[in-house]
Amino acid sequence: MGLPIDDLLAVLPAGRVLTDPDVLAAHCRDEADLCDAGTPLAVVRPRSTAEVAATVRVAAAHRLPVVPQGARTGLTGGANAVDGALVVSLTGLNRIIEIDPDEQIAVVQPGVVNAELCRAAAKEGLAYLPDPGSFESSTIGGNVSTDAGGMCCVKYGVTGEYVLGLEVVLADGEILRCGRRTVKGVAGYDLTGLFVGSEGTLGIITEITVRLRPAPEAARTMVAVYPTVAAAGRAVSSVIAAGHVPSMLELLDRTHLRAIEAYRPQGLDTEAAAMLLIATDTHAATDLAAIADCCRSAGASELYVAEDALEAQALTSARRLAHPAMEHLAVQAFPSGRGGLVVDDVAVPRTRVADLVAGVEEISARHGVLVGVVGHAGDGNLHPVIVVDRADQSSMDSGRLVFDEIMRLGLSLGGTCTGEHGVGLLKRDWLAREIGPVGMRIHRAVKLAFDPDGIFNPGKVIALR
Amino acid sequence: MGLPIDDLLAVLPAGRVLTDPDVLAAHCRDEADLCDAGTPLAVVRPRSTAEVAATVRVAAAHRLPVVPQGARTGLTGGANAVDGALVVSLTGLNRIIEIDPDEQIAVVQPGVVNAELCRAAAKEGLAYLPDPGSFESSTIGGNVSTDAGGMCCVKYGVTGEYVLGLEVVLADGEILRCGRRTVKGVAGYDLTGLFVGSEGTLGIITEITVRLRPAPEAARTMVAVYPTVAAAGRAVSSVIAAGHVPSMLELLDRTHLRAIEAYRPQGLDTEAAAMLLIATDTHAATDLAAIADCCRSAGASELYVAEDALEAQALTSARRLAHPAMEHLAVQAFPSGRGGLVVDDVAVPRTRVADLVAGVEEISARHGVLVGVVGHAGDGNLHPVIVVDRADQSSMDSGRLVFDEIMRLGLSLGGTCTGEHGVGLLKRDWLAREIGPVGMRIHRAVKLAFDPDGIFNPGKVIALR
Repeated sequence: MGLPIDDLLAVLPAGRVLTDPDVLAAHCRDEADLCDAGTPLAVVRPRSTAEVAATVRVAAAHRLPVVPQGARTGLTGGANAVDGALVVSLTGLNRIIEIDPDEQIAVVQPGVVNAELCRAAAKEGLAYLPDPGSFESSTIGGNVSTDAGGMCCVKYGVTGEYVLGLEVVLADGEILRCGRRTVKGVAGYDLTGLFVGSEGTLGIITEITVRLRPAPEAARTMVAVYPTVAAAGRAVSSVIAAGHVPSMLELLDRTHLRAIEAYRPQGLDTEAAAMLLIATDTHAATDLAAIADCCRSAGASELYVAEDALEAQALTSARRLAHPAMEHLAVQAFPSGRGGLVVDDVAVPRTRVADLVAGVEEISARHGVLVGVVGHAGDGNLHPVIVVDRADQSSMDSGRLVFDEIMRLGLSLGGTCTGEHGVGLLKRDWLAREIGPVGMRIHRAVKLAFDPDGIFNPGKVIALR
Repeated sequence: MGLPIDDLLAVLPAGRVLTDPDVLAAHCRDEADLCDAGTPLAVVRPRSTAEVAATVRVAAAHRLPVVPQGARTGLTGGANAVDGALVVSLTGLNRIIEIDPDEQIAVVQPGVVNAELCRAAAKEGLAYLPDPGSFESSTIGGNVSTDAGGMCCVKYGVTGEYVLGLEVVLADGEILRCGRRTVKGVAGYDLTGLFVGSEGTLGIITEITVRLRPAPEAARTMVAVYPTVAAAGRAVSSVIAAGHVPSMLELLDRTHLRAIEAYRPQGLDTEAAAMLLIATDTHAATDLAAIADCCRSAGASELYVAEDALEAQALTSARRLAHPAMEHLAVQAFPSGRGGLVVDDVAVPRTRVADLVAGVEEISARHGVLVGVVGHAGDGNLHPVIVVDRADQSSMDSGRLVFDEIMRLGLSLGGTCTGEHGVGLLKRDWLAREIGPVGMRIHRAVKLAFDPDGIFNPGKVIALR
């Protein structure tokens, strides 16, 4: 056994091991604020499962931390480096290995970008449905590791519901294949499901078999505008309670409507308290009319139904501007030019959406910190977005206070601290509160069953000590 | 610490601990043939989570095996007693704790019968969809423990896709709550998903939170009759490949058609090689016409579309007679009067359904053992049903040979050894072959993380030594 880098160079092809300080700095963190990040010893860019396994064997021999990374679009610090770690960047494992239209499955490497898989499936008349906001840049490996959600999940479910099988490099460098290619299968423990959402703490995913679906029917889309958040919340509850199954049910609050209008004017009603964006793709015309009735009864001040697919696309695009518009707002908001966002991710029972938004408004006002709310109201998963000045420690401290109060509010409403972004570093303390000491003990036991020396993504999700 | 029974009597209310030999005998086994069963020390019938926990604490102190049981309708010996075990019968925990129509969830104890939950949900205009063949008698706890499937799964998925949260008594008697009541949530490892399908080897489930859905639209139903199994297989593939999403797509082979006709005449075509039973519940009329076209093109000798819900119900009822009809046939087939069935449960890629059925016919003919095939062709999950004489060891041995050859065939077609029944005792060796040594090592590590002394359902799913 030599020095770790020498051992890596000995087992990997040339060009795989990067130690240039600029490269290390570029691989330190994902998109989360409020999270620590260390400096890795090296960035390894494997091109095959065997190279991942060889890397892990070297790390295991030296007890080096291993931090898997995809596109680093995560929002919880889950992909942040720790000091002295090997960062394993999986973006070079980016082949779509197979699309089988008859079985309606795809087999992909973890570095394949979500949108690429969508396009490849579409060529076969099929769809890969999970659609995180980052779908144009985030990778399937990252999506699986966080069990990413998105706008279609209210009808079509989250990433995990599409993952049939995995290949995973374990902590000793062995390669596990779990799950299957068949639609059904219950042979043994659901290890596949356990790796989904485990944020790189149990193994490194090197191949993913996903279920595709026949492309949904063309959706019809509408917006409903509300003078109060409570009315918008009533609309969400009544749409669901009436038995509708919308394919999208999004909420934007006034802060977001204004941020989007300031960023790229769309003609949105910036005096409204909230806007719902709703689509349905089965019996679309009749169902949308019935959904519109629910929205009207709940007190909508305005309803607008998109006339065609192009207009529907425009409405959805406005929703997708929410994040860049708020980032723009944050930069403008502070003279330092270093304004940024802490994006929260609370999921509450669907009937408590209005309570959450009202509570966030109260917290925001009390601390004098701007917070917008946007998200997937149809499944109760909302993103309070806290605007902070990264150059100002007191602003960051206030942001942290607001963040914690929102977490506490979400749990008090019967919710969970993360609906789709994961725990990472940002919510480790809140996970512990949510699941309690028995849950933490079992989490640690599971972690140690897979990774006895704690080399995989240490400190993320749970602290071992 | 006294004798185990005394310790149980000391911590449980009167009437909970049963040691009458007839009671013990009645709790020895589930419905699987070919599986060993021992004699328990006692049957415990707890009425609350606290009583389950108290029972487990006594078992842990004495290192007694604990075998959880529901309605014992399982088909793999997963609920069979082992010598000296405490059988924990959960049928007394049978309360529907809550149905929340606004959140579309139900909270139930494990002993609630599937059909009872369905009826309670229906009163709220909602549906609990997973529909194992045993739904009139099997319990939700058993359904969760095996991740049970059924006829609707081709469209609506298996039990696990409906389980949001669990309460579980762990091996030290501590009570774990995992999962959530919200639609979405990714906080920590998916322990809920890990317990689903773990067949009582990781803990005892004492409460289950399930997702309900708006009741599906009225289905339309048809049958298609085929002169060859290959043609029926082509029909299955072409229906799926055309992008249809049927709500039922069942296959019955000639052996089943004849068995049903002999048991309760329905006018089924007993000269056909196979019959498909197909339903669709979205755009039902137009979709069914298109599905019928696929079926016709694949070479159906006859097509029949049910004229109304009553007729559709009659067709589905005929399918539900498959198991009792084959049991009747088995009893008639042998002078001993002790004929029975070994029900297999292979899932293969959907395009290999015809290959599986043809292979089973060949195996059946070669061994001179009658085997019928029935099942969920739309998701590739078929049940070869082997007819054996329990009174004749050579018949049982032949049955075992046929069973093993069918398992081997299923794996060789890219399938799994169990699509929905689980592993239990019956398929332990086949699980090991399917997942290989690395998979087995991880299974053992997970088992020990939850149950270090191996008290829960020992010998089921995996052997620890």
